[in-house]
Amino acid sequence: MIEDITIRYFDSFKEKTLVDPILIEGLPGIGQVGKLVAEYMIHMLGAEKIGELHSIYLPPQVILDESGFVRLARNELFLYQGDGKNIVFLVGDHQSTSNEGHYLLADAYCEIAEELKVKRIYTLGGFGVGHLVNEPRVLGAMNRAELRPDLEAAGVRFDRDEPGGGIIGAAGLMLGLSAGRGIDAVCLMGETSGYLVDPMAAASVLATLSKLIEVPVDPTRLNERASEMEKVIEGLVEGEKLQKDEELSYIG
Amino acid sequence: MIEDITIRYFDSFKEKTLVDPILIEGLPGIGQVGKLVAEYMIHMLGAEKIGELHSIYLPPQVILDESGFVRLARNELFLYQGDGKNIVFLVGDHQSTSNEGHYLLADAYCEIAEELKVKRIYTLGGFGVGHLVNEPRVLGAMNRAELRPDLEAAGVRFDRDEPGGGIIGAAGLMLGLSAGRGIDAVCLMGETSGYLVDPMAAASVLATLSKLIEVPVDPTRLNERASEMEKVIEGLVEGEKLQKDEELSYIG
Amino acid sequence: MIEDITIRYFDSFKEKTLVDPILIEGLPGIGQVGKLVAEYMIHMLGAEKIGELHSIYLPPQVILDESGFVRLARNELFLYQGDGKNIVFLVGDHQSTSNEGHYLLADAYCEIAEELKVKRIYTLGGFGVGHLVNEPRVLGAMNRAELRPDLEAAGVRFDRDEPGGGIIGAAGLMLGLSAGRGIDAVCLMGETSGYLVDPMAAASVLATLSKLIEVPVDPTRLNERASEMEKVIEGLVEGEKLQKDEELSYIG
Amino acid sequence: MIEDITIRYFDSFKEKTLVDPILIEGLPGIGQVGKLVAEYMIHMLGAEKIGELHSIYLPPQVILDESGFVRLARNELFLYQGDGKNIVFLVGDHQSTSNEGHYLLADAYCEIAEELKVKRIYTLGGFGVGHLVNEPRVLGAMNRAELRPDLEAAGVRFDRDEPGGGIIGAAGLMLGLSAGRGIDAVCLMGETSGYLVDPMAAASVLATLSKLIEVPVDPTRLNERASEMEKVIEGLVEGEKLQKDEELSYIG
Repeated sequence: MIEDITIRYFDSFKEKTLVDPILIEGLPGIGQVGKLVAEYMIHMLGAEKIGELHSIYLPPQVILDESGFVRLARNELFLYQGDGKNIVFLVGDHQSTSNEGHYLLADAYCEIAEELKVKRIYTLGGFGVGHLVNEPRVLGAMNRAELRPDLEAAGVRFDRDEPGGGIIGAAGLMLGLSAGRGIDAVCLMGETSGYLVDPMAAASVLATLSKLIEVPVDPTRLNERASEMEKVIEGLVEGEKLQKDEELSYIG
Repeated sequence: MIEDITIRYFDSFKEKTLVDPILIEGLPGIGQVGKLVAEYMIHMLGAEKIGELHSIYLPPQVILDESGFVRLARNELFLYQGDGKNIVFLVGDHQSTSNEGHYLLADAYCEIAEELKVKRIYTLGGFGVGHLVNEPRVLGAMNRAELRPDLEAAGVRFDRDEPGGGIIGAAGLMLGLSAGRGIDAVCLMGETSGYLVDPMAAASVLATLSKLIEVPVDPTRLNERASEMEKVIEGLVEGEKLQKDEELSYIG
Repeated sequence: MIEDITIRYFDSFKEKTLVDPILIEGLPGIGQVGKLVAEYMIHMLGAEKIGELHSIYLPPQVILDESGFVRLARNELFLYQGDGKNIVFLVGDHQSTSNEGHYLLADAYCEIAEELKVKRIYTLGGFGVGHLVNEPRVLGAMNRAELRPDLEAAGVRFDRDEPGGGIIGAAGLMLGLSAGRGIDAVCLMGETSGYLVDPMAAASVLATLSKLIEVPVDPTRLNERASEMEKVIEGLVEGEKLQKDEELSYIG
Repeated sequence: MIEDITIRYFDSFKEKTLVDPILIEGLPGIGQVGKLVAEYMIHMLGAEKIGELHSIYLPPQVILDESGFVRLARNELFLYQGDGKNIVFLVGDHQSTSNEGHYLLADAYCEIAEELKVKRIYTLGGFGVGHLVNEPRVLGAMNRAELRPDLEAAGVRFDRDEPGGGIIGAAGLMLGLSAGRGIDAVCLMGETSGYLVDPMAAASVLATLSKLIEVPVDPTRLNERASEMEKVIEGLVEGEKLQKDEELSYIG
């Protein structure tokens, strides 16, 4: 019978030795900010896939690639080892469809972190503000007060009133649940409207994270994507203005 | 106490020997396409019922027949053995009412397939396009890339952008979950508006499936039903046009 | 820790011997028809409470009586023994709040029936038709075809098209699930608008059931309640007519 | 793996001896009445935190404090020992997100009460009436009829028709579930509109509870908060009147 959550590591991974790894979580969420950052880093650093996770708490559907090949909705683990750094990435198609599933999956992620002897977890997400943001800040949260100075030094902002509603889903729960396992964890949230996939917010988070973990990642292509997005939005705003002007002249 | 999922084979089945069976799944879904095809084949081939499945994940209701006799909502297994072919059919009243239940039921279906040493699974469904379709294509998906050439040879189409949202429910999950059990699985989806029970889409899927499994099934009655449906729809469209014309003449 | 379903029999019951008991289920449902009939019978026959059931599948609330005394939402078992008849009644505040819970509770009810060696189950309910019904018929369903002649002899009607959607909840599931335990079960459904608590439909069901189980129950007070209800409805309909007339005269 | 419900007592608590403790529950609910009262008492009495509870039935989110420090949604236990009184407080961020979870959490709370040999449970809540209330009554409910005279002597009111819908969530379930464990339990509900956080209703409940448990709690600051709230509401009502007057003069 199927297990509620199944984690499978590739054989190639079993021979690896990890030295003081960190774990970066970038699952889907507000503005897809975390997903954009983590997947961009995986691509740019050439991280290698080491395992995957399936669960009955993910949506009951399969994903098709362009050739018609089908696979279960899943979460994936990637590993980057270079310049004395060991980074495990957690990315995926979906988060849980149920409240209880959110807890059970986040706990499974933390168990992975504990097994791999992860020293610090970074969870990435968007912080939806409901309007367009020109220069998105990166807001922070952490599961141990002593982690704050390092974050501030890297430009992470702490807004005493935000995010008022707490942090929902894996990005938040992993901080709460890893505390009980004695693992430090930090959440970086890029300000975003929350309406669109937001490469601008992602670029801000990438810059901050890159500084924090001391791993340079060339941001050019993400910045390009952000610029394109910016133009698209300007076009939309412009179009809306034109329309309003027309409406006015029509009325007038 | 009731089990979450109960599978019961008839005694008559226990003496049978299956030789390289395939399994065809046609549970309810978009346009009832899969259900129409599988039930039509069961009827035309004279397949014999071999078992049934009940579950707390099916809707909590019973079905009445015309005489007032009541039975639990269920899924059924049928077997066809003829011309050296062994086909197990999986049909039923409903799919799961919950996300987790979808996974657990699909896994139970794959366990049946594994127990019966099924060589290949065909899941059948509709692919909703939101508008009427004149010559419905049959789109394909598979859980092993090597299966594609055979499908293409039988006229199955692969649209690199469709279905964009993945395949939801048993038709999709069985592909994903059977891969882990080493069973080849293919999904055939007939294009359909998605608004009505669609015998036209079903006729297309039947023709393709029949070719693929090399089991001739006389399509006359399904084609007749498709023709009748076509007339009904033409009538509806015509009626709508008339109404619009009347409205126009009324306005004019 | 709390059990998902807890059944508790009173000590007084443990000394009783049941002879060929039948079980009558009258839980809340459409028009409260089943509940009205079963609770009326319990009252008129002076049936004695023998146990109760609590469950996490019932709504998470407590019921207050007029004095402020609080108890958990529950289902209750009553026993009537007289004139050589043994009748167990199953009534209660609520049915399950979840789909899975419906199955698990209905199975628990059938387990009670099996333990008590119940010979036949009668489930009572309403059959909603969406409009006022003057002389409500009693529609039937059964879990063994051979039970039909007796039902017809008692005036139970079988409409080959109704109820089209099957029977939802305990009244239906108990028929389906008791079949597997070898217990005969019958569902009696009084036609009702479905909008109001319906003592008229209940009176019809009571008359039919009373005949079937050969236990006379004085229907006077239920008939009175039905007559009162009829007047209330006539008043409502009359009022509506008056209002429409006024509206018309106002327009005119 | 994570447990469905985790209860953890602080080490400092393990050495304490409780003498005939009572338990006061003030989890979030209608008008936040129970929460206001319990948290105010904890503050004013200087009760000490002795443990906390986490659960997959609480919302899947974390709470941030002003400094960016993150913790899981939780329930908390506090202890006050003074003047020969032992009071355990149960407060928290949330109640369950699911029906079943409500039962399982309320049962866990009652298990805590049983373990700590609690003599009586007081659950606190609001009773929503849908309109502003000038002098909020405190309505009562209890899980043993004999408890009523004491409650009446303290001014608790029993309205034979209210609350008609029963008591939903922990405040109600704890009464029902503790009865089975032989623990007396009382629910005190402050009348409230149900639209706003209601310190006025809380002040009424506090006065009554204080009398019942014979623990004086200076109500000054809660009364002040109630007065401020009263002014805010008067302002709102006044503003609404002004607006209506303006609208009328505009029309006129």
